[in-house]
Amino acid sequence: MTVKVIRVGEDILSANEDKAGANKARLDKCGVLTVNIMSSPGAGKTSLIMSTIANLKDKLRIGVIEGDVASSVDAEKINALGIPVIQINTAGGCHLDANMVEYALNGLPLEAIDLLFIENVGNLICPNAFVLGEDRRVMIASTPEGDDKPLKYPAMFADSDCVLLNKIDLMPHLDFDNDAFRRTVTGLNPDVIIFPVSCQTGTGLADWYAWLTAAVRGKRGK
Amino acid sequence: MTVKVIRVGEDILSANEDKAGANKARLDKCGVLTVNIMSSPGAGKTSLIMSTIANLKDKLRIGVIEGDVASSVDAEKINALGIPVIQINTAGGCHLDANMVEYALNGLPLEAIDLLFIENVGNLICPNAFVLGEDRRVMIASTPEGDDKPLKYPAMFADSDCVLLNKIDLMPHLDFDNDAFRRTVTGLNPDVIIFPVSCQTGTGLADWYAWLTAAVRGKRGK
Repeated sequence: MTVKVIRVGEDILSANEDKAGANKARLDKCGVLTVNIMSSPGAGKTSLIMSTIANLKDKLRIGVIEGDVASSVDAEKINALGIPVIQINTAGGCHLDANMVEYALNGLPLEAIDLLFIENVGNLICPNAFVLGEDRRVMIASTPEGDDKPLKYPAMFADSDCVLLNKIDLMPHLDFDNDAFRRTVTGLNPDVIIFPVSCQTGTGLADWYAWLTAAVRGKRGK
Repeated sequence: MTVKVIRVGEDILSANEDKAGANKARLDKCGVLTVNIMSSPGAGKTSLIMSTIANLKDKLRIGVIEGDVASSVDAEKINALGIPVIQINTAGGCHLDANMVEYALNGLPLEAIDLLFIENVGNLICPNAFVLGEDRRVMIASTPEGDDKPLKYPAMFADSDCVLLNKIDLMPHLDFDNDAFRRTVTGLNPDVIIFPVSCQTGTGLADWYAWLTAAVRGKRGK
C-alpha cells in the first residue's frame, strides 16, 4: 500500500479547480457570463459594478456575488439598486474560493441572469490562485497605488483578461507614469486589454461596457 | 497513545509566535526599536520610510527589511540613501513571517541600528496574523482607498498601535468622510493614535517623527 501524501497547497488548489469546473458548467447551462473582479482594497471594484449596473441594467439582467472579509456594506448598496446580490463574508479569509461561490450560486436566480459579477476580496495576491468558475478575469488597478504595482504583484496582471486603470481623474495630482505602467503590464501579459477609466467621472467606461456586452452576446451565441 | 492532530492554522501561528519571540529577544538585546509597517498595495509604505529616513537619519541609525512578492525596486531606492537594507521576496506569499525576518536579521548590522523598519507585503488581511518580533505595529490607510476600509478589513485596524492616514493632499478631489473613518477606527481600537499625513507634501509628518523618536528613546531608556 502506498502512503497517501497530502500536499496542502496542491491538493487545495486541485480540489478548488474541480469545484470551479462544476460552477462553470452550471453557469454555462444557464447562459450566464461570469466575471471575477479583483483588485487591491479600495481600487474601485464596487464603484465599477455600480456604474455598470446603472448603465447596462436595461439591456442585461445582472447579478452580483460580493466577497468581503467582514461587513455587508457593498451588498447593501447593490441591493438598493434592485439587483439580486449575495454577500459572502470570509471571516478573515483573504480570497474567495469555488466552494464559497457554489453556496452563493444556490441563492441566486441563475435562469434570470445574463451577467454575473463576482467581487473578490480586496487583495492583489491570493485571489489570483483560486479560480471560481468565471468566464473572464478582470482586475482593477488605480492610479494612486502607483505605476510600479505590476512589478511588485505580477501574477494577477499576468493572468487577467482585462485591466481597468481606474481613478484617471486623479492623474494631474499624482506622479504616475502611464507609459511605464502600460509597458510593464503588456510585458507580463501581451494579450491583455487595458481600459483607462474613472468610475467617478465616467471617462472611458463606454469601452468597458462595449467589451462586456460583446462578451455576454458571445456567450449567448454559443 | 493519543493521536497527534496537526491543526495547520494554529500550529503555523504558534510556531511563528515562538520564532517572533526569539527575533524580539535578539532585537531587544541590541536595543533596536522595530516597527512593522503594513498597508494595502500602494498606500505609501515605502514613501513613508523614505521620508522618515530623510528626516531622522542624522539623529537615528536606521535599517530596513523590505518585503515584496517580487522585485527589489523598493530596496534599491533605500539602498541608494546609504541605509542598510535587506529585500525579502516571498515568491507569491502574501505576508512576511518571523522565519523570513530571522534570515533578514542575519544580514543586518543590528548593533549599529537604533530603528528598524520592516515593510510588510502590501495586503490588508494576512500580515496581521503573523507577528515578526516587532515593538510597534503601524498601518497606513490612504484616502483614495475610501473611508469604509476599517469596516471591511477590521482586524488590522484593531491590532495596530498607530494608523497613518496618508495622501490627505488628495482629499479635495475625493469623497472621503474623515469623521466616519475616525469613528470606525476608534470604535475598533480606542487606544490607537491616528496621524493624518501626506508623504507627498510632508503635512503632518512631524508628529509621526516625534512619536517614533520618543519610542526609540523609550526603548533605549529601558
